[in-house]
Amino acid sequence: MSRFSRYFPFLQWARAYDGTTLSSDLLAAVIVTIMLIPQSLAYAMLAGLPAEVGLYASILPLVAYAVFGTSRTLAVGPVAVVSLMTASAIGQVAAEGTIGYLAAAMLLALLSGGMLAVMGIFRLGFLANFLSHPVISGFITAAGLLIAAGQLHHILGVAGGGETLPRIVASLSGHLASINPITLVIGVGVLAFLVFARKRLKSLLATLRIPARLADSIARAAPILAVAITVALAAGLDLGAQGVALVGAIPQGLPAFGVPSFSSDLVTTLLVPAFLISVVGFVESVSVGQTLAAKRRQRIDPDQELIGLGAANIAAGLSSGYPVTGGFARSVVNFDAGAQTPAAGVFTAIGIALAALFLTPFLANLPQATLAATIIVAVLSLVDFGAVRKVFAYSRSDFAAMAATIVVTLGWGVELGIVAGVVLSLLLHLYRTSKPHVAIVGQVPGTEHYRNVERHSVLTSPDILSIRVDESLYFANSRFLEDTIAAHAAERPELRHVILMCSAVNAIDASALESLEEINRRLTDAGITFNLSEVKGPVMDRLKTTDLLKSLNGRIFLSQHEAASALGGSIGQK
Amino acid sequence: MSRFSRYFPFLQWARAYDGTTLSSDLLAAVIVTIMLIPQSLAYAMLAGLPAEVGLYASILPLVAYAVFGTSRTLAVGPVAVVSLMTASAIGQVAAEGTIGYLAAAMLLALLSGGMLAVMGIFRLGFLANFLSHPVISGFITAAGLLIAAGQLHHILGVAGGGETLPRIVASLSGHLASINPITLVIGVGVLAFLVFARKRLKSLLATLRIPARLADSIARAAPILAVAITVALAAGLDLGAQGVALVGAIPQGLPAFGVPSFSSDLVTTLLVPAFLISVVGFVESVSVGQTLAAKRRQRIDPDQELIGLGAANIAAGLSSGYPVTGGFARSVVNFDAGAQTPAAGVFTAIGIALAALFLTPFLANLPQATLAATIIVAVLSLVDFGAVRKVFAYSRSDFAAMAATIVVTLGWGVELGIVAGVVLSLLLHLYRTSKPHVAIVGQVPGTEHYRNVERHSVLTSPDILSIRVDESLYFANSRFLEDTIAAHAAERPELRHVILMCSAVNAIDASALESLEEINRRLTDAGITFNLSEVKGPVMDRLKTTDLLKSLNGRIFLSQHEAASALGGSIGQK
Repeated sequence: MSRFSRYFPFLQWARAYDGTTLSSDLLAAVIVTIMLIPQSLAYAMLAGLPAEVGLYASILPLVAYAVFGTSRTLAVGPVAVVSLMTASAIGQVAAEGTIGYLAAAMLLALLSGGMLAVMGIFRLGFLANFLSHPVISGFITAAGLLIAAGQLHHILGVAGGGETLPRIVASLSGHLASINPITLVIGVGVLAFLVFARKRLKSLLATLRIPARLADSIARAAPILAVAITVALAAGLDLGAQGVALVGAIPQGLPAFGVPSFSSDLVTTLLVPAFLISVVGFVESVSVGQTLAAKRRQRIDPDQELIGLGAANIAAGLSSGYPVTGGFARSVVNFDAGAQTPAAGVFTAIGIALAALFLTPFLANLPQATLAATIIVAVLSLVDFGAVRKVFAYSRSDFAAMAATIVVTLGWGVELGIVAGVVLSLLLHLYRTSKPHVAIVGQVPGTEHYRNVERHSVLTSPDILSIRVDESLYFANSRFLEDTIAAHAAERPELRHVILMCSAVNAIDASALESLEEINRRLTDAGITFNLSEVKGPVMDRLKTTDLLKSLNGRIFLSQHEAASALGGSIGQK
Repeated sequence: MSRFSRYFPFLQWARAYDGTTLSSDLLAAVIVTIMLIPQSLAYAMLAGLPAEVGLYASILPLVAYAVFGTSRTLAVGPVAVVSLMTASAIGQVAAEGTIGYLAAAMLLALLSGGMLAVMGIFRLGFLANFLSHPVISGFITAAGLLIAAGQLHHILGVAGGGETLPRIVASLSGHLASINPITLVIGVGVLAFLVFARKRLKSLLATLRIPARLADSIARAAPILAVAITVALAAGLDLGAQGVALVGAIPQGLPAFGVPSFSSDLVTTLLVPAFLISVVGFVESVSVGQTLAAKRRQRIDPDQELIGLGAANIAAGLSSGYPVTGGFARSVVNFDAGAQTPAAGVFTAIGIALAALFLTPFLANLPQATLAATIIVAVLSLVDFGAVRKVFAYSRSDFAAMAATIVVTLGWGVELGIVAGVVLSLLLHLYRTSKPHVAIVGQVPGTEHYRNVERHSVLTSPDILSIRVDESLYFANSRFLEDTIAAHAAERPELRHVILMCSAVNAIDASALESLEEINRRLTDAGITFNLSEVKGPVMDRLKTTDLLKSLNGRIFLSQHEAASALGGSIGQK
């Protein structure tokens, strides 16, 4: 693969593009477009932005991703969690509904796009690894709950909202007296219809002998059906006059293209949120992309994915959109509908552009409660208490990081939540490796294996201490090793030889090297030899450049068995 | 050891105290007192505090440490690096020479003491492990350079100072025109005398047949000799009238006892500096204590040391002192002079109290240049470029953390310097473990050993991939493992079995568990079995609680040899 086609992955599939691929991609694009229209309107509302911004964010970004992205089936666009993070970031700097609010959302997309692209060019995709699975899973569950709670006021037809659970609850309970009954009926009705469509419609259609594939498509069209019906109701019954909140006039046409106005202060304020949005969006998108690619034995390149998502976000920022990423449900639909190449994304973009040109006049009568119901049903599938239980059962420290992420996200908002999760998981990891598992080992009789004396019945010798440290030696645990060996040496006056079994030592940093030198000095003073066994190749290569090997008062053995035989033998002869 | 005597270690040595121990401790106390008087005055000046505060910080804190500390020979009191950090912290909140400045220093000692004691009670001594050796060594070298540069203006007899190297240089060059020649003569003279005493005096005295031990004591008394001579000169020639900066009137008597006045704002501002001072002071003190204890086959308890140093700092904060810790040079002198128990510290405290009562009138005529020369000679021994070279040769990433610590400390001050070093060394550690060393292994002919195919001439089979990951599996590297195995599976169509050799896997966290499940699913789809070998006991115990073992499409083998034989055998039969 040439460098050029690495940065422009579409060159790899565009050459072999033919009629069969085209018809597959077109069919998938039609289905995704029908799904994306209500989603993009709803997520724009979630982000506190005018409805058309959701459509704009679903046009050019899709084209940009098709050129630079490596996943064949990822469907890019507005997603729930990133929309919530956008609302949280922009809410700090501008009031909802102002021009400054939209400009800030565009700037956020530009900043996030720039960061993603730079991370991709410098191959910094590994930064996303610092988000552990439990932290991501906890964060998405909490964000789902927060989003659902934040939409309830649209269902009830009251003012409200807020960025943390306590504020949402306080705001809701302050407005309960002014519930709009018609809005409530629409909201609950759409909610019930969407839940029914998701849970029951397919099996009902199956009993009517409708083919599974068609039944599936009908079920997926439920949200757009809900939109059409409630628009017709609102228009026919003039519900707007009866206090039902509607989306209102949407400008007809394609987005304007240009750089949003901004100040350096605004850039500084948005840098951290843009970084968090970039990382969360990237992780969500890459995990969807990898899962789908594996099913067809394709691969995606995470570093090039950064560039693809970066390009999509820059396109969003330049075309009146807001931050986007690869969405889970949408990508699965795209994959299942048979999309073969990212050209399906381009066709989807064309579909959304047509909607922006011709469909918007009809959407003015769309009740906000319909969109809120769409959001609630979509995000509740993000909430995964099963994962919480599973992590709790497997690892208390992973659970602690997960629980902290959930609690802080719900109580203090998405940004603090994700930061708390990352910091805590790093600290817990460091704490664990700073007190590593240490085993005194002995020979399994009749073999060359050496195992933990506490777990196996093994042979040991009173004048030899064979000690295995189950962790790389580095600054966080080097003093622990000094302490441990000193304690054993102090306890066993008959000790003559210490063998440090290094089979689990994958690296020795400068701090640990100093500790080994210190251990050697102290054991030398005590008349005890200090030996190493089973030192790995890369570790040995590094040690050869140091003075430790010269000053070592014992020897280095290829295997623990060789070490124990040699030292045991020499004592036996005395 | 009872819980009670764990918290009051003096109970362990006080019972066996006798005349021999008393005379050893008394002799050591006299020598340390003579060394400590000029040091405590000088370090108080370095911290921007009145000279007597240095004496006060050398009385009660020593008694408190004698009660709660576990080192027999550690000499507590003002030290250079902590004094510099104190000046840096307090300079942000109060102007030098004001009552607020002293109150803030006392509060800093109280806060630091409280933190140390709490860390000790909750056994949080491991937190100090996050300071790697290269970061500490780089920090102390940079602090030494910064302290020496910051004292030059006292030697030149001009105004000046500053907390970063650029500011010190700018301040000095702005005042070069107003050098006081008499001050310069005194400063350079004392500097030359102290360097001579340190480097040459002992060998000179040896040629005069003076016993080595006495020669040593004479060399160590050089600073107090310099003090006596320059005080006499300043008094006799009335140098103060000729523009030589003198220490000035020092109140005669013992320190007042009481809580300093403070506001909650001040506490908030000083929290971070107090924490950094606590950690740096603790690390410095514990490494000195451990080195000295090992020489006499004694041990110190790091968590109880936190309580000891905490008590010493609380005592400093309540008796008009400022933050203290165990000093290196002073402790070595105490040890060499034959101190047997912390009672030597109590006797030293009595010596300093006598100095505060009777010696202070004579010190008013002490030139500041004398103290500055004492400081410069003392701190230049902290500067260790050899350690920088050694770390550079051994590990580029450790060197990067060390260099960042030095550059940031010199350029932006001590607090940012230590934080930059810690953060960078953590990030580099995570980066390293996020892309672990992975080896494809094969059988060393005629043995049961499996080694890296690239380093050894070994036997492999085309349908088996034996892969060893040389790192614990956790969130930062779990995706890397997925990618690596997927890449090998895609490259080798004849592959039937993957054996993941877990001999270096010391832990598997929840993220890595999910990755293993994902790898198992993907390999199952591809008709490849996924097997584990040499899983360690503690790791296996954890895996047994999960669903992975049930869903695993391959087997778990005790040894890699067993795995290769079993899987190789079954293929051979087909």
